[in-house]
Amino acid sequence: MRQAHLEWTIQSTALPVVIIGAGPAGLMVANLLQRADVPCVVLERGTREYIETRPRAGMLEDRSARMLERHGLADRMLTESDTHTACEFRIDGKAHELNYSELSDGKTHFVYPQQEVVTDLLRQYLDGGGDIRFEVSDVELQDQLEETPSVSWTSSDGTREQLDCSFIAGCDGFHGVTRKSIPAGAVKEFTHQHGIGWLSILAEAPPSTEKVIYALHADGFAGHMLRSSTVSRFYLQVPVGEDVDNWPDEKVWSELHKRLALRDSDWTLTEGKIIEKRVLDMRSHVVEPMRYGRLYLLGDAAHIITPMGGKGMNLALNDAEVFADAIASYYHHKSTTGLDDYSAVCLRRVWRAQEFSQWMVDLVHRNEQPFLSRLGHARLQHLIQSREAAASFAHMYVGAN
Amino acid sequence: MRQAHLEWTIQSTALPVVIIGAGPAGLMVANLLQRADVPCVVLERGTREYIETRPRAGMLEDRSARMLERHGLADRMLTESDTHTACEFRIDGKAHELNYSELSDGKTHFVYPQQEVVTDLLRQYLDGGGDIRFEVSDVELQDQLEETPSVSWTSSDGTREQLDCSFIAGCDGFHGVTRKSIPAGAVKEFTHQHGIGWLSILAEAPPSTEKVIYALHADGFAGHMLRSSTVSRFYLQVPVGEDVDNWPDEKVWSELHKRLALRDSDWTLTEGKIIEKRVLDMRSHVVEPMRYGRLYLLGDAAHIITPMGGKGMNLALNDAEVFADAIASYYHHKSTTGLDDYSAVCLRRVWRAQEFSQWMVDLVHRNEQPFLSRLGHARLQHLIQSREAAASFAHMYVGAN
Repeated sequence: MRQAHLEWTIQSTALPVVIIGAGPAGLMVANLLQRADVPCVVLERGTREYIETRPRAGMLEDRSARMLERHGLADRMLTESDTHTACEFRIDGKAHELNYSELSDGKTHFVYPQQEVVTDLLRQYLDGGGDIRFEVSDVELQDQLEETPSVSWTSSDGTREQLDCSFIAGCDGFHGVTRKSIPAGAVKEFTHQHGIGWLSILAEAPPSTEKVIYALHADGFAGHMLRSSTVSRFYLQVPVGEDVDNWPDEKVWSELHKRLALRDSDWTLTEGKIIEKRVLDMRSHVVEPMRYGRLYLLGDAAHIITPMGGKGMNLALNDAEVFADAIASYYHHKSTTGLDDYSAVCLRRVWRAQEFSQWMVDLVHRNEQPFLSRLGHARLQHLIQSREAAASFAHMYVGAN
Repeated sequence: MRQAHLEWTIQSTALPVVIIGAGPAGLMVANLLQRADVPCVVLERGTREYIETRPRAGMLEDRSARMLERHGLADRMLTESDTHTACEFRIDGKAHELNYSELSDGKTHFVYPQQEVVTDLLRQYLDGGGDIRFEVSDVELQDQLEETPSVSWTSSDGTREQLDCSFIAGCDGFHGVTRKSIPAGAVKEFTHQHGIGWLSILAEAPPSTEKVIYALHADGFAGHMLRSSTVSRFYLQVPVGEDVDNWPDEKVWSELHKRLALRDSDWTLTEGKIIEKRVLDMRSHVVEPMRYGRLYLLGDAAHIITPMGGKGMNLALNDAEVFADAIASYYHHKSTTGLDDYSAVCLRRVWRAQEFSQWMVDLVHRNEQPFLSRLGHARLQHLIQSREAAASFAHMYVGAN
């Protein structure tokens, strides 16, 4: 899987970087390249309204927040996000708070929905005169292994367009065209099915908690995540491949009430109108290297991770910063080092996050194998009881490093 | 699986406790009961020489050493054992020391072979006038659910003997008669095959290291454990169910040299005469509850664990202390609380150890699934790089709690 060493050429620096996909990775790259005076164009399949309202992840870890701040992209986030310092584990009807901030020198999570991150990044990019094309279709990549690759697409008015470029940033997610443009066998792909399904629910319900709740119940995991003062996200462990039709709203609420219940407490769960309900199968995927010639993969195009631990968007932002720094060095200092190292640098964090996410999956889910279910229970008991285990979890969870 | 609440009776306190099996668990119970003036008899299948020379585990964790000290059973151990403060991980030909003592307020491991623990415990018990019968066979248990159970056996001279007792302590290991005497379904059994084989080697070779070495190699795990100044234990990851005949001595050494190799170092492995070579399949087993009427299971009879992390003998000693304390309370204070709680108290530690052991198995073994192998690698990299992760590992590894 070793690929040709990248050569610097004067011609390439006269061409733009084409960024495919206007999610957190793509728009972060766009902003950083704009600030670094590197020409770029963003291609996005959806409308502006679509990307600014599509609910996805919701948690920025400490180092992602610092990154946005460092680049002057955090103004609205810092005033509008909720700062989180603790999470709660529920087990056998008892609540256990884990104050990860206290255990990590005061570092915190910022609860700020992904669509808000996207909205901010897009506005900044456009305010700076950024070039973004919405509603493009039939995107095709050519000559990724050549000195001058190009991208062609059909624009919203039906015109076929084509652009030569220096590099292509594949930021179009797991199902996007960039990853799929790589010939079979040219990169190594790692896949893992965790054997666990989640019913993911978004409801117009004010949060019933100030902290994220992870509940380990004999019938399976239940999670209560926070999004805003009027909308909450919930998760219920379900069999892999479960049909969402098996889960009418009443059943969703009764199951959430049961699995989140506390003994000897008057805590209750506030219900609300369910506005999204879908089944996710917990799976992971990693591409190595995160590069094919002059095509670089970022975020979900390079790796998908379970929602457990909230690392997905944070990995995407990290990829974007590493990539944009490398591109700036290429354009302004004729250096190929950053781009050559891009994949290895990002993958260290990616694999570390995958390991953490799997560890957390095992921590709170009912496993069909009774032995493994007992291990998950023991892991959680230890996390609650051991200050050292809690400190180690806290650093990783909050993104302290 | 709920069993009848235990009743205290004056009759039972006139009878002895029968301890089946003279390993670390059985002999620890025997010593503690002797000190507590509770009558007991130990039955052992082997000869005295057999149990005093049979090589097994070799590492006492801090809390086990403290326990032996507390009961005045540590004199020879403290002078003759080696104190360990660090272990070494080898990965990609590089060595990384982890000083677990520094990370756990100075707590240490004591390297002291199991047969030495057994020798010390046996001598103390006999010096105190203890009753032990060697070379017994055809042990049978009767009336475990009754107020007065009994044990019968054939003694070394061929006589059939029988003894009524208050309680039976099943300390005869996984393959012993006590666990098997429990009717199917009367307790719950949890089994797990880890899908990993070990070739376990004992060699008359002085140690080539001052620290236990765990090596993660592309061809599989290799371990170098310490036993004494003249004998060392080695482990090699092999396929499950591997035939030991596939491993002539020369192949063992060449594989150990390869997997333990360091880059840019003149470190070498000292060879020696191989005196034991056997294949182990990594498996775990737990019985819940660790009790059937007046039969209590201790150590390997109640739970087996992989050698990874060195918890087996330490769990056995913990069971023994919890059980002996409970028996003393029963005999002298008419209290059944300790015996009623015995299983739950021990199982918390057992499951915690099982979780840790599995975590360590995943840490250093090559997994057939490439995704999971990458996770193990990431786990090890994180352990090496994160002080918090190392501190959490250290506390659990050294037995600080």
